[in-house]
Amino acid sequence: MAESPRYLTGDGEGIREFIDKFDVFLFDCDGVLWSGDHTFPGTNETLELLRSRGMHPRAETPKASRVRHEQQHQIAGRLPEETRLPRIPSTTEEIFSSSYSASIYISRILQLPENKRKVFVLGETGIEQELRSENVPFIGGTDPAYRRDITPEDYKRIAAGDPELLDPEVGVVLVGLDFHINYLKLSLAFHYVRRGAVFLATNIDSTLPNSGTFFPGAGSVSAPLIMALGKEPVSLGKPNQAMMDAIEGKFKFDRSRACMVGDRANTDIRFGLEGKLGGTLGVLTGVSSKEDFETGPTRPLAYLDKLSDLLGSN
Amino acid sequence: MAESPRYLTGDGEGIREFIDKFDVFLFDCDGVLWSGDHTFPGTNETLELLRSRGMHPRAETPKASRVRHEQQHQIAGRLPEETRLPRIPSTTEEIFSSSYSASIYISRILQLPENKRKVFVLGETGIEQELRSENVPFIGGTDPAYRRDITPEDYKRIAAGDPELLDPEVGVVLVGLDFHINYLKLSLAFHYVRRGAVFLATNIDSTLPNSGTFFPGAGSVSAPLIMALGKEPVSLGKPNQAMMDAIEGKFKFDRSRACMVGDRANTDIRFGLEGKLGGTLGVLTGVSSKEDFETGPTRPLAYLDKLSDLLGSN
Repeated sequence: MAESPRYLTGDGEGIREFIDKFDVFLFDCDGVLWSGDHTFPGTNETLELLRSRGMHPRAETPKASRVRHEQQHQIAGRLPEETRLPRIPSTTEEIFSSSYSASIYISRILQLPENKRKVFVLGETGIEQELRSENVPFIGGTDPAYRRDITPEDYKRIAAGDPELLDPEVGVVLVGLDFHINYLKLSLAFHYVRRGAVFLATNIDSTLPNSGTFFPGAGSVSAPLIMALGKEPVSLGKPNQAMMDAIEGKFKFDRSRACMVGDRANTDIRFGLEGKLGGTLGVLTGVSSKEDFETGPTRPLAYLDKLSDLLGSN
Repeated sequence: MAESPRYLTGDGEGIREFIDKFDVFLFDCDGVLWSGDHTFPGTNETLELLRSRGMHPRAETPKASRVRHEQQHQIAGRLPEETRLPRIPSTTEEIFSSSYSASIYISRILQLPENKRKVFVLGETGIEQELRSENVPFIGGTDPAYRRDITPEDYKRIAAGDPELLDPEVGVVLVGLDFHINYLKLSLAFHYVRRGAVFLATNIDSTLPNSGTFFPGAGSVSAPLIMALGKEPVSLGKPNQAMMDAIEGKFKFDRSRACMVGDRANTDIRFGLEGKLGGTLGVLTGVSSKEDFETGPTRPLAYLDKLSDLLGSN
């Protein structure tokens, strides 16, 4: 049985001990630093506290359709004026989206043959920018040439493996949230994987929050391919360890001195536990409850009512 | 344990006995009457034989993207010149596609409130024609107004339940093979079901044969919605009994005097068994093998090497 986690809110001594165990903190964003449109009070000061003690807070989030630069501005923009300090916003390397993790995974972890290094993208500009930042060649994505109906000729050309339509150098199909999903792109992705391409997804979130309700998420773009292929993608989102490998591939940190902070036991905390990090820290400002953390199957090392309770160590 | 099926090829006496048990034969098409582009020799004479003995052969097939009239021409066109008899092609009522079955199901089986009778269609003209034939009102489908990108305004209007975008009279979402699938249509279908619409699929075939290979099938159009909603559609394709109910709703036949003929144990034969038909007849010209029929979990009452072996009763 997993041990019960330590409840740290109001326990200054416990918080100090906890923080001192780590050099690096990995943060989930939504539900931890903010919730939807609302930034939690004290987010900024807490990150500052960790920095002042020599920690390296690194945020990661599964929203692959945004790009790191946007997220950076978003974090800055979300922090209320009165709490915004000169040393905020965070630096780019602190934000680690699942599309960034996919790019790192492709460029540094996957061992692709020289002539199979191109990525066929089902997704938007966020994914493309991350692939460019890692010098990963790609096709598809926002290219308007793919935003058209399939034709009778296309079926024949795809069946024949016409290299003008099915690029022989494609070795990876990367699927994220594509607001321009269509039957031609799905057919091409399907045939690339059937011909041996690695099937990756930035994340497989079933839904996407927007305007106070939900819309089909990135997982809904993978779903047609999963059904047609009878095969699941490697998802670079949590809790899949491909993402942890990608983070480690980039930052080379000591896992035993790292702590994952999150609001979801079954993704964030599990991500840290399966990654054999030195610690995991739950917060109650998101999805999981006190009961989930205390008695569920994946329990953090410690938990807090809210992230800014870490400020109570002073 | 299920009994072993009777093997009828070459057994003239057994064939006569078998045929005499039934008034109606329901046929799967692909793998029974034809295979891909190739019509089996003797298909025509066999249907003629059954007719001459007062049987009613009725074909049904899950290819909802075609329409009955097209299928009728297809059967006629596929029969080789030398075997085409004056009384062929079959009459319209003999062809029963899964989109026809969906239309029957909606118009005669589903008890929709007066103000919830519209169908939102993800599919092509085949489905629309079948709905029209049953006077079922629908929106979506091939309407070019839905063939556009989603806009930021759409998210807000959908969230607010704007009746200009989300028709309050829609009580059913019917998903077939839609070659013009897009994010706007998926979002609308998602919200209709969330608001209470019945979620139906003409079939959930994972793939579609074309040009000697495969492409994403109708099931791939349902898949994003299944993932986003966390809910499966009622599929009107085999082996789901909704299709049998729809056939019965239209033709009023005696199930104990009906026989399902098919090449797939797990769909066709299962469809007949679960529908409590008087008999099931397997043929070895498609997917299932002698072993599947002899020892598998769903065994036909009898089976043949090929459909035209029924001619051996003379």
